Amino acid sequence: MEIGKIVGTVVATRKDEKLEGMRFQLVKYVDTNGKPTGGLVIAVDSVGAGVGEIVLVARGSSARLTKLTDGKPVDAVIMAIVDILEIDGEKKYVK
Amino acid sequence: MEIGKIVGTVVATRKDEKLEGMRFQLVKYVDTNGKPTGGLVIAVDSVGAGVGEIVLVARGSSARLTKLTDGKPVDAVIMAIVDILEIDGEKKYVK
Amino acid sequence: MEIGKIVGTVVATRKDEKLEGMRFQLVKYVDTNGKPTGGLVIAVDSVGAGVGEIVLVARGSSARLTKLTDGKPVDAVIMAIVDILEIDGEKKYVK
Amino acid sequence: MEIGKIVGTVVATRKDEKLEGMRFQLVKYVDTNGKPTGGLVIAVDSVGAGVGEIVLVARGSSARLTKLTDGKPVDAVIMAIVDILEIDGEKKYVK
Amino acid sequence: MEIGKIVGTVVATRKDEKLEGMRFQLVKYVDTNGKPTGGLVIAVDSVGAGVGEIVLVARGSSARLTKLTDGKPVDAVIMAIVDILEIDGEKKYVK
Repeated sequence: MEIGKIVGTVVATRKDEKLEGMRFQLVKYVDTNGKPTGGLVIAVDSVGAGVGEIVLVARGSSARLTKLTDGKPVDAVIMAIVDILEIDGEKKYVK
Repeated sequence: MEIGKIVGTVVATRKDEKLEGMRFQLVKYVDTNGKPTGGLVIAVDSVGAGVGEIVLVARGSSARLTKLTDGKPVDAVIMAIVDILEIDGEKKYVK
Repeated sequence: MEIGKIVGTVVATRKDEKLEGMRFQLVKYVDTNGKPTGGLVIAVDSVGAGVGEIVLVARGSSARLTKLTDGKPVDAVIMAIVDILEIDGEKKYVK
Repeated sequence: MEIGKIVGTVVATRKDEKLEGMRFQLVKYVDTNGKPTGGLVIAVDSVGAGVGEIVLVARGSSARLTKLTDGKPVDAVIMAIVDILEIDGEKKYVK
Repeated sequence: MEIGKIVGTVVATRKDEKLEGMRFQLVKYVDTNGKPTGGLVIAVDSVGAGVGEIVLVARGSSARLTKLTDGKPVDAVIMAIVDILEIDGEKKYVK
């Protein structure tokens, strides 16, 4: 999975019929210091995450393995909200 | 998903037989300011999007999860047209 | 899909038994001006394309969705030959 | 697979229900000298690896082919712990 | 597929039980001149390739389509040994 920060949302009225009711979040990938790496992904939110939260994003076919995304044309899903990021025994991020 | 802008079309007469009748759009990936990042993808259009529109593109096996692309040798599909892109409470893009 | 130009061929006598008789083409990815981007892929040819032609390449599991590649250990297939590349109303490439 | 070093852990209380009880490890990709390349991945640990160990990470649908990850929305799994890395006849790394 | 050169091997005693007996090769991606591009992958060898050989590597789910790797948590397989690399009519590499 990739680690990122939700920075915004995408509104899309015209979309594949299977995508009705889905929330698309704009996620910027971050490094272990929480600094954006330049990468960007639009992910479906399956855990009720909000703008500003640090999250884990699963890509590819694995993004369809949640109840919400099963069988849908999406390739990125937020499947966890990060509480603590610990590196070399140091808590780099605490929610 | 990736966010991009449709900048053109690709005509391909000779192609896999399963691809008859499909429209291939040329999409340039953009950042949150709508500026091209340098990335490029040829995607099948499943939502009737046109040149100039900002769209979402699903890649990989997920690109085959629309009615149009089911079972076809395509790895990129336009599955939504972006209306609003909102970042940090600011509408960065409105269609 | 990615857009690229066929620049050569790869001969491989010793290979997985399912790959007997397949042609491997060497494809350099190009930008919208037909200029190489630095990317390179070895793709199975499913449409009879030849050296010098501009083609579309599907990657991943989608590369196995042609008759030729079904069930085979290949992750890239040439599934279309480009005739016209049109950007902003201008024909950038005509075969 | 990619080769990397486990540098930390991620705690995520709120996550997809299928992910209960899973350990998420923070892995930095390394080159053949064990030097970080800049890449980062959060992977599920299926072999009992710990911080500081050099491991192999499988990505994509293959990450779901362990008992632990079967059917789960994860796209990266640690499936081996590296004992020896030998290049050009020289042991570059010994655990 | 990607083209690369086998430069070494990885020994991993502790690994997923499905991986018993597999050989992991360290492959450096090369360009059309055989020069390393900086990319690196650990691949399962399904064709009896050895250190120093130029090979083709299939990634993702396609890496599981050989007898050896079927159903296993691996995302990269060596499925061919390159004999000749011909570009613009010139043999750039002959084994």
